[in-house]
Amino acid sequence: MRTLALVVEYDGTAFHGFQRQTRERSVAGELERALSRLFGHEVRVVGAGRTDAGVHATGQVVSLQTASPLPAGRIAVAASALLRSAGIAVLRAAEREPGFSAWRHALRRTYRYRILNRPSPSPLLEKRAFWVRARLDGEAMSEAASRLLGERDFLAFCATPPAKGPTVRTVSELKLERHEERFELLIAADSFLHQMVRIIVGTLVEVGRKRRRPGDIEGILASRDRKQAGFTAPPHGLYLERVEYADPI
Amino acid sequence: MRTLALVVEYDGTAFHGFQRQTRERSVAGELERALSRLFGHEVRVVGAGRTDAGVHATGQVVSLQTASPLPAGRIAVAASALLRSAGIAVLRAAEREPGFSAWRHALRRTYRYRILNRPSPSPLLEKRAFWVRARLDGEAMSEAASRLLGERDFLAFCATPPAKGPTVRTVSELKLERHEERFELLIAADSFLHQMVRIIVGTLVEVGRKRRRPGDIEGILASRDRKQAGFTAPPHGLYLERVEYADPI
Repeated sequence: MRTLALVVEYDGTAFHGFQRQTRERSVAGELERALSRLFGHEVRVVGAGRTDAGVHATGQVVSLQTASPLPAGRIAVAASALLRSAGIAVLRAAEREPGFSAWRHALRRTYRYRILNRPSPSPLLEKRAFWVRARLDGEAMSEAASRLLGERDFLAFCATPPAKGPTVRTVSELKLERHEERFELLIAADSFLHQMVRIIVGTLVEVGRKRRRPGDIEGILASRDRKQAGFTAPPHGLYLERVEYADPI
Repeated sequence: MRTLALVVEYDGTAFHGFQRQTRERSVAGELERALSRLFGHEVRVVGAGRTDAGVHATGQVVSLQTASPLPAGRIAVAASALLRSAGIAVLRAAEREPGFSAWRHALRRTYRYRILNRPSPSPLLEKRAFWVRARLDGEAMSEAASRLLGERDFLAFCATPPAKGPTVRTVSELKLERHEERFELLIAADSFLHQMVRIIVGTLVEVGRKRRRPGDIEGILASRDRKQAGFTAPPHGLYLERVEYADPI
């Protein structure tokens, strides 16, 4: 058996999330169906990020095992052709050592969150960005964002706490870029709690609307209470952009 | 009666083009329906660019006359709310002098054409960019593009010649930008012949694939023969981005 890692892009709009589900359409389910056909045997994939319904990916990574001799260099194009109508594409494929898991061996995940901030909506960014009508104060948002950097307990920014294990995560990058009418938040961490990016974005938007101050962040973190943080920003502004491993894919 | 100019964005995917048609869904038809409702009387719009089916706009301009006293500053948000499900948004509205026509008074139109150049397609850019699998030579394309600048007879780059009038146009800007796996062509001219941008893009793609040389451009222009130019690139990579007037909107 060979172990492979695939870099995958998808439009999350039509999926009930990444994880396979019995009845609903999922990214993993569609990938497994296409790859099983391509490789001629049943395939199971493990994803680096369990993106929710509506969340997109430009650089999701999945690992899988296959008995097929198909060269890695030909898998992306062949799998993408089978997945075209599903709204998924395979961008690259690489051989990995046995036992490699896209989930367990990921060192760092980077998400992008896209906000459109102007009075009118954008038909071309519908389901691609979160439209915020009210003018946002970018400086206040950047200042609040900087207070989330580093190793911290993010339990207040978690929708469903993990059954066991710590809620401390290390945010190694948090950058708010402004491009005319758009804000783009780039956030990287070792791993993320459930809906952590979307709750961080919702909280930053409340800061940008002057409903909270940047200095409130420390108190929210210390509370370890979801109710102290802001609203959960919608899924369609979120993109899983990159997953890093000791050995780049 | 007041004369207004509106800046309009739309996703061209679901429209049979800008111009109103009896049976098919058009951008002008949807705009007129919403604006008639907003203003309480029948409205006719004139567009700066008659975009074809599937072509998008981020900065189309339309002119219209209305008897409504609704302040210009409130029209964009109110009209966008009525147009939300149609895939159209009004970004700005401004008063114009009587007799103003978005079509006749436009001094310069700028289009953007977006090409995705990589082995795998992009689900997130489906219907938003023209996917070209084969590697394109950006330098050769830029060199060919530069030979189209200036005042020239573009009849060879025209799908349906105008019934009367010259086929000479002045291309004042033609810039090919590269952003990783994407090419973006920006082209500005006083006005454009029918499908001129898409035929220019098709010809440049043939240069990028080494099926033509940059030096072939002069001969194509001189031929004034559509058959000498390249294929017509698909509409979904094209965006009407900006229209300029003596008095900015």
